[in-house]
Amino acid sequence: MAKTPTLRIIPLGGLDGIGKNMTAFECGDDMVLVDAGLMFPDDDQPGIDLVLPDYTYVLENEEKLRGIVITHGHEDHTGALPYLLMDLTHKVPIFSSKLTLGMIEGKLAEHNIKSPKFREVTDGSSVNLGCFSLQFFSMTHSIPGALGIFLKTPAGTVLHTGDFKLDQTPIDGVRPNYNAINRFGKQGVDLMLSDSTNANFPGFTPSEATVGASLRHIIKNAPGRVFVASFSSHIHRLQQVCDAATAVGRKVVVTGRSMVTNTKIARELGYLKIADEDIVDAFEINDIPEDKIVVLCTGSQGEPLSALARMANGEHKSLSICEGDTVIISATPVPGNEKSVQGIINSLSKIGCEVYDKTNATVHVSGHARQEELKLMLAMVHPRNFMPVHGEAVHLRAHAKLAEGMGIPRDHIFILDNGDSLQMRGGKVSLGPSYDSGIIYVDGLRIGDTDPVVLRDRQKLSQDGIVTCVVTLRSRSHKVADVDVSSRGVSFASDDELLAGIEDTCRTAIDKNNQGSPSVDVLRKAVRNSLSNYLWSKTRTRPMIIPVVMEV
Amino acid sequence: MAKTPTLRIIPLGGLDGIGKNMTAFECGDDMVLVDAGLMFPDDDQPGIDLVLPDYTYVLENEEKLRGIVITHGHEDHTGALPYLLMDLTHKVPIFSSKLTLGMIEGKLAEHNIKSPKFREVTDGSSVNLGCFSLQFFSMTHSIPGALGIFLKTPAGTVLHTGDFKLDQTPIDGVRPNYNAINRFGKQGVDLMLSDSTNANFPGFTPSEATVGASLRHIIKNAPGRVFVASFSSHIHRLQQVCDAATAVGRKVVVTGRSMVTNTKIARELGYLKIADEDIVDAFEINDIPEDKIVVLCTGSQGEPLSALARMANGEHKSLSICEGDTVIISATPVPGNEKSVQGIINSLSKIGCEVYDKTNATVHVSGHARQEELKLMLAMVHPRNFMPVHGEAVHLRAHAKLAEGMGIPRDHIFILDNGDSLQMRGGKVSLGPSYDSGIIYVDGLRIGDTDPVVLRDRQKLSQDGIVTCVVTLRSRSHKVADVDVSSRGVSFASDDELLAGIEDTCRTAIDKNNQGSPSVDVLRKAVRNSLSNYLWSKTRTRPMIIPVVMEV
Repeated sequence: MAKTPTLRIIPLGGLDGIGKNMTAFECGDDMVLVDAGLMFPDDDQPGIDLVLPDYTYVLENEEKLRGIVITHGHEDHTGALPYLLMDLTHKVPIFSSKLTLGMIEGKLAEHNIKSPKFREVTDGSSVNLGCFSLQFFSMTHSIPGALGIFLKTPAGTVLHTGDFKLDQTPIDGVRPNYNAINRFGKQGVDLMLSDSTNANFPGFTPSEATVGASLRHIIKNAPGRVFVASFSSHIHRLQQVCDAATAVGRKVVVTGRSMVTNTKIARELGYLKIADEDIVDAFEINDIPEDKIVVLCTGSQGEPLSALARMANGEHKSLSICEGDTVIISATPVPGNEKSVQGIINSLSKIGCEVYDKTNATVHVSGHARQEELKLMLAMVHPRNFMPVHGEAVHLRAHAKLAEGMGIPRDHIFILDNGDSLQMRGGKVSLGPSYDSGIIYVDGLRIGDTDPVVLRDRQKLSQDGIVTCVVTLRSRSHKVADVDVSSRGVSFASDDELLAGIEDTCRTAIDKNNQGSPSVDVLRKAVRNSLSNYLWSKTRTRPMIIPVVMEV
Repeated sequence: MAKTPTLRIIPLGGLDGIGKNMTAFECGDDMVLVDAGLMFPDDDQPGIDLVLPDYTYVLENEEKLRGIVITHGHEDHTGALPYLLMDLTHKVPIFSSKLTLGMIEGKLAEHNIKSPKFREVTDGSSVNLGCFSLQFFSMTHSIPGALGIFLKTPAGTVLHTGDFKLDQTPIDGVRPNYNAINRFGKQGVDLMLSDSTNANFPGFTPSEATVGASLRHIIKNAPGRVFVASFSSHIHRLQQVCDAATAVGRKVVVTGRSMVTNTKIARELGYLKIADEDIVDAFEINDIPEDKIVVLCTGSQGEPLSALARMANGEHKSLSICEGDTVIISATPVPGNEKSVQGIINSLSKIGCEVYDKTNATVHVSGHARQEELKLMLAMVHPRNFMPVHGEAVHLRAHAKLAEGMGIPRDHIFILDNGDSLQMRGGKVSLGPSYDSGIIYVDGLRIGDTDPVVLRDRQKLSQDGIVTCVVTLRSRSHKVADVDVSSRGVSFASDDELLAGIEDTCRTAIDKNNQGSPSVDVLRKAVRNSLSNYLWSKTRTRPMIIPVVMEV
C-alpha cells in the first residue's frame, strides 16, 4: 500500500530576524529549497564577517534536492548561496528571474564558482521538480524581478509570497500578478507563507513612485551638484534618480563598487534604462557645470569605507563633496546603523551641504507590505493555514494577529522557530519534528561553528584589553629570574608605577607558591589570580591575563 | 582708565552631540559655569565607562569660579559634576532647583563627596556672582524643576534656555514663565543660547499630558499585570503612570535601582505624588490580583542588566513577566540603543506579552522643543545674536536656519565647536579665541586622556583576537629551545594543524634571522611579521601578535 504523501516545510532561517531566509520543502524523495540568504553580524558577534543559516539538513539530504528557488536578488535571500553551492557535491539547478540570476552570477564569480546551472523563470513560468509543481508569479518589491511561488505537491498546496509590497504604480510597470494570486486562492491554498517585515505598521506602504516626485523636486531645485546615496540593488530607485537627473539635463556619475557593478548588470539586462551619453565617468566631471551633475553612490548606511563617506572626508580618488552640494540619503538605516548614518549626516552638515533624508523629505519608502496589504493578500489567497515568515518575533506575532482577525482559526496559524517544521498530509497542516538548525559564522576563511567562548573573549578583550606576563624561573632554585610584561588595549600601558606593581605581584605570587615542587600549572594560576586581583584593586578593570611560566 | 568689560562665552561641551553640556561664562575676574554633564560612550570607544568634557580651563581658572549653575537634573547636565568637584580645590556653590539638587546629592554621595555647597533657586530667583547677575525662570522639560537663566554682565546680557519644550499643560502645572521671558526680551538680550535637539522636526512637540490619556487607556483595559519601563528621572511620566494606576484601583510596584532611588527622592521632595498605601513592595505582590498591579521599572533602553530585562528573562529576584502581561516601553531608544530595545521587545513578544511602544501607541513624547516652539522662543526673546547649543552638527545648523528665517542676520548667528569662544563687549558679539577642549574618559578608576591607540587596539582585539608566542633560545647556539603559543578570541584555537604551523613559522623566522648576533628586537620583529603573514594566508584574519623572545 502506498504511504500517504507528506510534505515537510522546514524553515532553516528567517524566523529569528530580518535575514538569512531559507526554507526547505520536502515531499517523499524530493526537496526544493526556497532562498539561501545571509545576515550581517550583530554587535555581539565581533569579528564575524557574515552569518549564514545552518544548512546541514540540506547537505545531509542532498540526494533529494531537485532545485533551489531564489525569490529575489537581495543578499538576505541570495548571500548563503556561494557557500551552499561549494558544500554541495552536485550541481543543483537554480531558478530565478533574469535580474536575480544576473546578480547571483557576479557573486558566484567572486567565489570562483563557475557555470552554475541557472534556470531563468518569470511571471507565469511552471516548473516540475520531482513531485513538486511550481508556478511563479510577479510581486513588487524594492528590487525588480521579485517572484512569489505557488507549490503543488501530492500532500497539498503552498503559496510563498517572497518579500513584497503591493505597488499599483511600480516603476517598471510590473504589478503583482493579482490574477494569478486569485486563481491560486480559488484553486485552494492549504498553507501560505507571507513576509512579516512591516506587520507592525498600519496602513499601506506608499508606492515607490511617490519617491520620484520628491527626487525630481530636490534635484531640479538644487543649486549645485546632487549626491544620491542608496542601496545599489534598488534598481527602481536608481531608475528614478536617473530619470529625475536627465529630465533637467543633468549627467549621472556612478561611484562605489557595488553601485558600479549593479548598475552595469541592470543596464545590460534591460532593467535600468539610461542613455550612454547621460552617464559620465567620475574623471570627466570637471568639464561639466556643477548644476548639471548627479552622483549616484553607495554609503547610505554610513559605512566608513563607502563612496559617500570617502567623498565627504576628501578621501575619494576623483570626487569630493563641498559646501553648497546637495546630498540625498535615499534609504533608511538598517537597524544598528542609525548612529553611523547620523554621523555622516553630521559631517555633511558641517561641510555646509543641504542634506535630505527620510526625516525631512519623502526620499525613501519601504519595499515591504504593511498591514492593509498583508490583509489584502490574506483575503485574495484565503489560505486554510498560515505561517508568518521573514521577521523578528514581534513581526511574526503581529502578522499572526492580522491573520486571526481575517478569520483564520488560531490553531491554523503557526509561529515557528528556525528548525521547527510543519507537515502537511491531504492538505491538513500540523507541527512536525524539529531539526538541527542554527547559524554558521563566516570568520575570515573559516566557515562553521565559532565557539561562543571566542566571541565572549573578543568582547572582553574590547572592554579591558589584555596583559601577558612571561615569568622565567631558575630551573633548580625555582626562583624568579625574569618577568616580562606586555599589554594591549589597557589604559595603564605607560604607568610605570603600575607596571612595576604588576612585576612585583607576579614575583610575589610565584614566591608564595614555591614550596615543594609546584607544577607550572599551579604557578600559572597563582600568577593569574594575583594579577587579576591587583589590577582590579588598582584600576577597577579586568583585562584578560595570559600568564606564561617557564623554567630555564 | 578702566578696561571695557568683556564677557567670554566658552562652550566646553554640548556642541558635538547630545551630551556633556558645559558652558563657561567669564567676565573680568569672575566665572560662572552652566551645567556639568556627561555623555555615554560610543561604539568606537570600547571599554570606556563615561565621557566627560575636558574642563581643564575651569580648573586653571578656579580662582575666578563664583558658582556652578545646573539647569536640570539629567545626567547630560549633571554627570560630570562629581569629577569636577573632586578636581576643584575649593568648595564652589552649586545653584539649581530643589529636585535637581536632590538628585545631584545622591550622585555626589556615591562618590563620597560630602556637604556640597547647595544653593536652591527657583522661578524668579536672582543671584549675584561677582559681576554677574543671574535671574532664573521656569521651563518645561522631561523632568520637573528645569530652569532657564538670564545673565546680566557689564558686557551685555545673555539668555540661556536650558533644555526645554513649551508645554501649555505640564503635569505639575509649572508652565514656562512666558512673562519673564518676554520681560527679558524687552530689556534686551544680546545673545541667546537655545536647545537644538529637535531643531530638525517641524511643528510643536505634543504636551506630556497626551501620554497620560494613552497610558490610562492601556492600563484600564489590560487583562493582567502592566509593566511600564521609562526613564527614572522622568517624574512627570512616573506621575502619570501612578495616576493611571490608582484611578483604576491598581497598586504600583517600583523596581530597578535608579527607579527606586528617584521615586524616593521625588516623593520626599513633593514632586511625585502617590499615597503610601498605593505603593507596594515587590515581595508583597503575590497577595494582589494580577489586574490590580502596575510595575514601574527601569530598562526602557534594553539594558541587559535592567529590571525589565531581568524580569523578562526570569532573572529578577521577585518578579517575572509572563504570558498575558502588558508591557509599555514609555520612552524612545537613545541613538545606538535601537537594537537592544528591539531585542527586548522581541523577547517579550515571544513570552506572549502585549507590548506597547511609541511605534504603536502614544506612550512617549519628547521633552525638547520642535521648530515652532524654537521660533516662538526666538520671537519672544528676539535676541541680537544667537548661538544654537545642545545638539549634533545637523541640529545646530537647522536651528541656525530657523533663526535666520526669524530675521537674525547671518553674521549674528554663531555655530561653534567645543572650545571655541564668543566674546561680548557693549552687547556686541564676535568670535573669540579657541581654548583647549576635548574629552576626558572615565575608564575604571582612570580618569583622563585615554591614548587613542588603546581604543584602536581594543577594537582590533575584538575583531580578530590575539596570539602570544614565547620563543626561548638556547643562550650560546641561539637555537630555538621552545615555542609556547597562547591565544584568545581567535577562531582557530582548537585547530592543531594551524597551531603546529604557527610554531613552525616562529622557528623558521628565528632560524632565518640567526646569522651574526641579531638583537632580541630583530628576532621579535621577524617572528611578528612571519606570523602575521602566515595567519593572513591561512585564515584571512589579522590577530594582534605579541612575540616574546628570550634567551635561556
